[in-house]
Amino acid sequence: MMLNCDLGESFGAWHMPVDEQIMVHIDMANIACGFHAGDPLVMQRALHLAKQHQVSVGAHPSYPDLQGFGRRSLAMSAEELIACLHYQIAAISGMAAVQGIEIEYVKPHGALYNDMMRDPQIRDTVMKAVSTCSVPGIPLMLQAHPQHQAISQQASQHNVVLLFEAFADRRYTAEGFLTSRRLHGAVLTEQEAFEQAVRIMDKGEIVAEDNSILSMPVDTLCVHGDSPGAVAMAEALRVELTKRKLTHVRPGTND
Amino acid sequence: MMLNCDLGESFGAWHMPVDEQIMVHIDMANIACGFHAGDPLVMQRALHLAKQHQVSVGAHPSYPDLQGFGRRSLAMSAEELIACLHYQIAAISGMAAVQGIEIEYVKPHGALYNDMMRDPQIRDTVMKAVSTCSVPGIPLMLQAHPQHQAISQQASQHNVVLLFEAFADRRYTAEGFLTSRRLHGAVLTEQEAFEQAVRIMDKGEIVAEDNSILSMPVDTLCVHGDSPGAVAMAEALRVELTKRKLTHVRPGTND
Amino acid sequence: MMLNCDLGESFGAWHMPVDEQIMVHIDMANIACGFHAGDPLVMQRALHLAKQHQVSVGAHPSYPDLQGFGRRSLAMSAEELIACLHYQIAAISGMAAVQGIEIEYVKPHGALYNDMMRDPQIRDTVMKAVSTCSVPGIPLMLQAHPQHQAISQQASQHNVVLLFEAFADRRYTAEGFLTSRRLHGAVLTEQEAFEQAVRIMDKGEIVAEDNSILSMPVDTLCVHGDSPGAVAMAEALRVELTKRKLTHVRPGTND
Amino acid sequence: MMLNCDLGESFGAWHMPVDEQIMVHIDMANIACGFHAGDPLVMQRALHLAKQHQVSVGAHPSYPDLQGFGRRSLAMSAEELIACLHYQIAAISGMAAVQGIEIEYVKPHGALYNDMMRDPQIRDTVMKAVSTCSVPGIPLMLQAHPQHQAISQQASQHNVVLLFEAFADRRYTAEGFLTSRRLHGAVLTEQEAFEQAVRIMDKGEIVAEDNSILSMPVDTLCVHGDSPGAVAMAEALRVELTKRKLTHVRPGTND
Repeated sequence: MMLNCDLGESFGAWHMPVDEQIMVHIDMANIACGFHAGDPLVMQRALHLAKQHQVSVGAHPSYPDLQGFGRRSLAMSAEELIACLHYQIAAISGMAAVQGIEIEYVKPHGALYNDMMRDPQIRDTVMKAVSTCSVPGIPLMLQAHPQHQAISQQASQHNVVLLFEAFADRRYTAEGFLTSRRLHGAVLTEQEAFEQAVRIMDKGEIVAEDNSILSMPVDTLCVHGDSPGAVAMAEALRVELTKRKLTHVRPGTND
Repeated sequence: MMLNCDLGESFGAWHMPVDEQIMVHIDMANIACGFHAGDPLVMQRALHLAKQHQVSVGAHPSYPDLQGFGRRSLAMSAEELIACLHYQIAAISGMAAVQGIEIEYVKPHGALYNDMMRDPQIRDTVMKAVSTCSVPGIPLMLQAHPQHQAISQQASQHNVVLLFEAFADRRYTAEGFLTSRRLHGAVLTEQEAFEQAVRIMDKGEIVAEDNSILSMPVDTLCVHGDSPGAVAMAEALRVELTKRKLTHVRPGTND
Repeated sequence: MMLNCDLGESFGAWHMPVDEQIMVHIDMANIACGFHAGDPLVMQRALHLAKQHQVSVGAHPSYPDLQGFGRRSLAMSAEELIACLHYQIAAISGMAAVQGIEIEYVKPHGALYNDMMRDPQIRDTVMKAVSTCSVPGIPLMLQAHPQHQAISQQASQHNVVLLFEAFADRRYTAEGFLTSRRLHGAVLTEQEAFEQAVRIMDKGEIVAEDNSILSMPVDTLCVHGDSPGAVAMAEALRVELTKRKLTHVRPGTND
Repeated sequence: MMLNCDLGESFGAWHMPVDEQIMVHIDMANIACGFHAGDPLVMQRALHLAKQHQVSVGAHPSYPDLQGFGRRSLAMSAEELIACLHYQIAAISGMAAVQGIEIEYVKPHGALYNDMMRDPQIRDTVMKAVSTCSVPGIPLMLQAHPQHQAISQQASQHNVVLLFEAFADRRYTAEGFLTSRRLHGAVLTEQEAFEQAVRIMDKGEIVAEDNSILSMPVDTLCVHGDSPGAVAMAEALRVELTKRKLTHVRPGTND
C-alpha cells in the first residue's frame, strides 16, 4: 500500500506551496505535465524534489485546460486525446530523464480521470494511449472500484498493468464512484478520512454514502495536497502504514 | 549538403498545407513542438509523414508564444529557457519514439533562433539546454556564419555538435546576419534564391547586401515552407544536389 | 432575409483568407472574440473590413479552446460560461467602439452553439449572459428550429430578442438539428445548398434527411466562409435575395 | 494622495487570496484583464468587490504571457501592442459596465510597465493606445519620475491625462527607476517602506540607493498585494493619509 499525491501543480507565478512538505511522507508523486498546471520550470522542480526524496514519479496528464485546471470535461476525439496523452507523457518522461529518473506510471487528472471511470469508451482511449506511449509497459493508475474485474479485463486487452487507488478523504456512492464535490458531505472530515483510510488498509473496504460496503483491491491511497490538513494526514497515514509494515513499495514490485 | 524545412506548423483548425508536398524533396524536417505551432495531433502527423518519406526529424522549439508564432523575443531567464527547451525536446522526442523514430537535431525557431545568433549569452543558454536535454549528444542546428570558429569553440565547451545552415532565399548583412524582413529586398526572388543556393553548394559563399563575400561552412540549406514557390524551389535544389551527388546524408554522418 | 458569415477566424500567423472577398456579399459578420480564434489584431482588421463594407457586426463568442477551434464541448459551470461570454462580448464591443461602430447581435460559436440548441439549460445560461451583458438589448442569433415557439418563449423570459438563422449547406435531421458532420451527406453539394437556400427564402421550409418538411421562421442565412465555394455561394445567394428585394436589412429593423 | 493595489490576479484554480482584505484600505484597484492573470470569473469577482468597497477600478493590461505573469518583455510591434491594449481595456470596461461601474484609469502591468518607463517609443505606443481606446479621456497611470516634465509633455501630445504613482516598498536608482528585483535590497523592509511612503506623502521626495534625493509629483502610492505584510502596510498608510486628510479622492477630481 502506497501513498500518492498530485504535485507540481503550480504555474508561473501561482504557487501551490505544499509540494516540499508533503514529499517526505509519500511514495508516489503524480506530476502535472503542463496542460492543467505545471509549466516546464515547475515540472523540473517537482521532479528534482521527488528525486531528492526518492519518491516514485508518475505522469499526471490532463485535458488541455489551464483556465479550468483540467476539471472540466472536454469532448476530444479519440485521436486528439491519444496525441495529447502521448505528448504529456513524453514531455514529463524526457524531463525526468534529464534528472536521471524514470516515470513509473500514468494517472489521468481531474475531469479526464472521472470521464475515464464513468465511460468505458474514454477508458479504452486512455488505455490505448498508455499502451502505445513512449514508455513501454508503463502502468495506468485509476480508481479502485467494485467493477475492478471488468476494468482489469479491459486493461489486459491493451496489455496495460493497472494500479488501483482509493481516496481517503472522499465520500463514495453505492456504485463506487466519488460523490460529487457539489454535494454536502462529499469531502470527509479529517477524522472520517483517517478512519476510511485505515479501513481500506486493513480490509480493502469502503463504507458508501448509503452505508453499503464496497469491497475492492487497493494498491495506493491518494492524499490531496491542496486540502488544509494534507500534510498532517499524509504523516498520520505514513505512521499507520509503517505500523503495518506496508512501507515504501515501488510500483513495479507491488502485489 | 542537406535540405531542411520547418514543418508541422499547423495548429488545430489552422493549416499550413505545404507539409506533404515538400516532404518528398527534403532531407530534414524541423518539427514544431507546441509552443509556437504544432498541437499534439499536428506533431503526430508531421512525424508520421517524415517517417514515411525517410526524412530526418529535428526538434524545432520556440519561445512560448502561439499568438506571435514564436517570432517575438521574450525575455526569459536562463533557467526558464532551459526548462522550456527540455520540455519541448522531450515532448517531440517521445512522440517520435511512439512511431519508432528518433529526433536527430535541435533547431531553435524564430525569435529564439535570431536571439541565439545575436547574443552569445542566449546562445550559451541554448547550448547548455541542448547538452543537458533528454537526447544525449544531439546536435544543434544554427546559422552558418563568418564567426563560425568562435561559435564552434563555444559549442565545444558544452560538448555540443553543430550543424550549420544557410538560407537560400534571404539576403545577408555584411556581418553575416539575415537582413531584417522589414527591409526591402530581405527576401530574395526565386531566381536570386536559386543562384544563392547554388553558390553555397559549390563554393560555401554568400554575397552580402553590400556585395562583400561571406565565406563559411554550410551543412544544410533551409527551404522556407510557407513561401509560394517553396515546393518548386525544394525540387530544383534537390536536382542540383543530385547532380553534385550531394544526396540524402543523415546528420550523424555528415562531414 | 440577411446573409451572415463567421469571420475574423485567423489567429497570429495562421490565416483564414476568405474575409475580404466574402465581405462584399454579406449583411452580417460574426467576428471571433479571441477564445476560439481572432487575436486582437485579427479582430481589429475584421472590424475595420466590416465597417468599410457597411456590414453589421456580431460577437461570435466561444468556449475557451484555441486548440479545438471551439468545436469541442467544454463542461463549464453556468457562472463560468456567463463570465466568459461577458468578457468576449465586452472585448469585441469595445474594439468596435474604437472604430466608431457597434456590435448588433451575439452568435455563439461551434460547440457552444450546438450545446445551446440541444440543451435548454445551457440555452438558459446563454440567454442570461446575453441579457445581462454590457450591450443592453442586444439580440441573440440561434438556429431556426421547428421548436421556435418554445425557444422564443424562453428568450422572452430573459427579455432577449432572437434572430433565427438557417444553414444553406447543411443537412437537417427530422428534429430540426444539423446532421453530424461525421455522417455522410451532412454537408450539401453546392447545387443542393443553393436549392435549400432558395426554398428557405421563398417558403421558410427545409427538407430534412428523412424527406419530412421542416417549417420555421428564418431571419438570416449562414454562409460558411471556410468551404471552397463559399464566395461563389454568397454571391449567388445575394443575387437571389436581390431578385426578391430581400436586400440588406439591419438586425434592428428586421421583422 | 491615493493608495492603489494590483488585484484580481488569481487565475482559475490558483488564488492570490489578498483581494478581500486589502480592498477595505485602498482607493484604487488595478484589475488584471486576462493576459497575465485574471480569467473572466476572477475579473467579475474583483470588480464586484471593488464596487462593494467603493474603490475606483483601473484596467491593468499586460503583455500576453500567463506563464510569465506578464513579467517578461515581449517584442511586440506597435500595432500588435495597441490592439492587445484595446482588447484588454475593452474587456474589463465592458465587464465593469455589467456591474454598473466604470473603469477610471489604465495602469500597464509588469514588464510592459517597466518597458514603457525605460523606452520612450514604447511609452508612445502605450499613450497612443490609451488615447484611442474605447474609454474616451481615460487617464494613464505610470511611474512618478524625476523626468516627469518630459513624460507629461509626451502625454499632452496624445491628449492623455497622467496619474503618477510611487512605490512605498521599492528601492529607487539615482535615475528614478526601480532597483532590479534581482539585486539585494531592491525590496524595502516594512519599516523602510513605511518611512519612504510617509516622506512621499509629506515632501514628494524619495531617497535613492545612492542617497541622492529624487523629487517629483506623486498622485498615488502603490501597495503590493502579494507581499506578506501587504494588508498591514495598507492599513498603516491609510491611517497616515487620514491624519493628513489626504483621504479617498477619486481620480477625476485629484489635483
